[in-house]
Amino acid sequence: MSLKRSITAVAVATAVLAGCAAQAPQSDASPKSIIFMIGDGMGPAFTTAYRYYLAGEAGSEVNPTVFDDLLVGMASTYPEDNTWVTDSAASATALAAGVKSYNGAIGVDGQKLPVEGVLAKARKAGKSTGVVATSQVNHATPAGFVAHVASRRMYDAIAEQYVQQRIADQTMLDLILGGGQRYFSRDPGGLAEQMAEQGYQQIWSMNELDQLTQLPAMGLVADVALPHAIDSDQPERLDAMTNKALELMSGQDEGFFLLVEGSQIDWCGHANDIACAMAEMHDFSAAVARAKAFVDANPDTLLVITADHSTGGLTLGANGVYEWKPEVVAQVHASVRPLTEHLMAGGKTALSSRWRDKVDFDLAPEELAALEKGFDQGEEKLGRAVLKVINNRTVTGWTTGGHTAVDVPVMAYGAGAEAFIGHQDNTQIPQRMMQLMGW
Amino acid sequence: MSLKRSITAVAVATAVLAGCAAQAPQSDASPKSIIFMIGDGMGPAFTTAYRYYLAGEAGSEVNPTVFDDLLVGMASTYPEDNTWVTDSAASATALAAGVKSYNGAIGVDGQKLPVEGVLAKARKAGKSTGVVATSQVNHATPAGFVAHVASRRMYDAIAEQYVQQRIADQTMLDLILGGGQRYFSRDPGGLAEQMAEQGYQQIWSMNELDQLTQLPAMGLVADVALPHAIDSDQPERLDAMTNKALELMSGQDEGFFLLVEGSQIDWCGHANDIACAMAEMHDFSAAVARAKAFVDANPDTLLVITADHSTGGLTLGANGVYEWKPEVVAQVHASVRPLTEHLMAGGKTALSSRWRDKVDFDLAPEELAALEKGFDQGEEKLGRAVLKVINNRTVTGWTTGGHTAVDVPVMAYGAGAEAFIGHQDNTQIPQRMMQLMGW
Repeated sequence: MSLKRSITAVAVATAVLAGCAAQAPQSDASPKSIIFMIGDGMGPAFTTAYRYYLAGEAGSEVNPTVFDDLLVGMASTYPEDNTWVTDSAASATALAAGVKSYNGAIGVDGQKLPVEGVLAKARKAGKSTGVVATSQVNHATPAGFVAHVASRRMYDAIAEQYVQQRIADQTMLDLILGGGQRYFSRDPGGLAEQMAEQGYQQIWSMNELDQLTQLPAMGLVADVALPHAIDSDQPERLDAMTNKALELMSGQDEGFFLLVEGSQIDWCGHANDIACAMAEMHDFSAAVARAKAFVDANPDTLLVITADHSTGGLTLGANGVYEWKPEVVAQVHASVRPLTEHLMAGGKTALSSRWRDKVDFDLAPEELAALEKGFDQGEEKLGRAVLKVINNRTVTGWTTGGHTAVDVPVMAYGAGAEAFIGHQDNTQIPQRMMQLMGW
Repeated sequence: MSLKRSITAVAVATAVLAGCAAQAPQSDASPKSIIFMIGDGMGPAFTTAYRYYLAGEAGSEVNPTVFDDLLVGMASTYPEDNTWVTDSAASATALAAGVKSYNGAIGVDGQKLPVEGVLAKARKAGKSTGVVATSQVNHATPAGFVAHVASRRMYDAIAEQYVQQRIADQTMLDLILGGGQRYFSRDPGGLAEQMAEQGYQQIWSMNELDQLTQLPAMGLVADVALPHAIDSDQPERLDAMTNKALELMSGQDEGFFLLVEGSQIDWCGHANDIACAMAEMHDFSAAVARAKAFVDANPDTLLVITADHSTGGLTLGANGVYEWKPEVVAQVHASVRPLTEHLMAGGKTALSSRWRDKVDFDLAPEELAALEKGFDQGEEKLGRAVLKVINNRTVTGWTTGGHTAVDVPVMAYGAGAEAFIGHQDNTQIPQRMMQLMGW
């Protein structure tokens, strides 16, 4: 890889284009704090879709989203591996440490050696650090910023490192907010107790969020992941956690580095579930708007938002039809699994009526017939039939249950934001943060 | 539509982000000339794919493409219609005149009234004007910049307007380069003769390109469209025409407005033919690099590059596989139609050997079986089987034979380029050009 060459090329291009980049990464412009937000799986089709989802029926007024307001460029996401398609671990490592690695790698390079990322560097520079996610907090994306293990599957080792890592590189998280209780045992001598001994305030449900009043603090508010936004009685739970995180971080004299992940955009993408994905985008958007407001009040803060990759091969329009129908997406009020379970539980004759419990449109006769056939074949097949109805009705296309290699949007705002204008590789994002911070 | 509001929001965001936009659209920074290049159908998956197509096998060195070097933002593309998915006519009208219209509209608004675009305004300002395309020159995209008709299907009326339009709005093209001989009759009194009477130098094949030495000039080098790049004995024909266009335009005292369309990226996308699409991207890329070099030598020129929409729902990776294989794309040396015709012509027993005439890898037994089955069902089915082999082998996904609504990349370079940083609606692109020019 000719990364140095790439950086130079982009820097020169940006300088020529913006006519101002030369004055950008000056030391006096160094941000005091960084908020780094990752929409997992949030490729360009997702940010586009969310704009029209807010607008509703085609022909309605279109307003720029917060993503539109802050867009400055795009990023390539390929791993070091023998594939152009990254997973969330390799991309987290790239976004954390500016180093390409293999799919599955958590904070380690191709030789499985630890690489020091922006969060650890922030900690060494005396800044407070935190991670917020709607997945378990030791899932690939936050883990890539904190831990160093050979495989993303090593959840227990990652959790252990969240507690013990400071010996190696002084990374001690001041704030941990998200899911993952099962990985931080509350048994005597377990990780939770060890963290309490280190002085962490601790909460175990979203209802207790207000009880966190100072750092260090940890809130593990779900056994593993939080519920999908669309299925949750608190659909803007990432926004709520981001609000709390910024409140706790804002009092830190030396500034902070905060990672916020919209974890489940990706999971809805894997499920090819557009209603689920748009609800996650809505929560992530609220969290981004909140971070933007924080930067408005604290202009020495740098806010960067991107995705680690795109998921599902989402397309707006499919099968030759020149339409996409977000107003129909908005009529679906459950993700595919609970919707399918709700249908299964009612029996075959109740499919139509139970469908209407969760969805605001009636099944057409051929759609009902497809669900009846799916019902007979069991829950998995019924789930596929449900998705087919929703994707056909909304004219939503998907090509995969996995990831794709398309470049992702990059948004930036506040102190040093101009450094991210244009095309960049994902590794250049933390590299530019480090340049701005003088690390 | 709250376009004014959108423009303001983006302008403010850009100003904050770039810390320099305030000084951008000053009158002394007005470009003398504009080169506007449209990659028809070139959504973000196409520019991403092209980068890895150049790199080859995963793990190879990655270099930024010319698109990467010049990327400054993205654009939304939706039409005024009751759909979020635009066609090339509505988007051409949006990109030419800054006005949303319905799918099919050529240079007219929703009331089918003519709208004056940047090309006409350039002409009125005394600048030379030209269009270059690999489609017929009266196809939707170039037509949207020149003509005013209710439907893109009105090819003859569009061609007529290319000749007669100057009465209405003084649009007289100084340069027309592309396909479309059949629409400009060379019979006595026909459009070709009328243009000759108006002083146009004329050529009728690519071999004669050197014979164009001054404006006004027209070269209609194919009956309808030029051959696909991948099937052509001159695969970089857009680059060659762009070179000639810039040579002819560069001598103009008052500057020029030149539209260059990479027309057939879209057509390969409609066909779901990745090898075809990458060859078109390669030619378009060469033309863009040539335009960039022109700007380097003539820094009072503004170069803007974008797409009118994305086509095909292209994804890099598909069916759960985390790979995309551009090195296999590069082993295919014909577009699907001639490849299929070549296979049909040889008979069923020759499928394997004739496949190898055009493709650098052997058919696996199950692939051969699929082609044999397709062969028995006729040319259309065989064509589909051919595409399936290529898309499976390269792990390329597609969701549609039509367009999708995903935002498209925006590249800009040279005088005034900073005005295009960030997110924008496609209508804002010509609006910003007009602002820069004081029109």
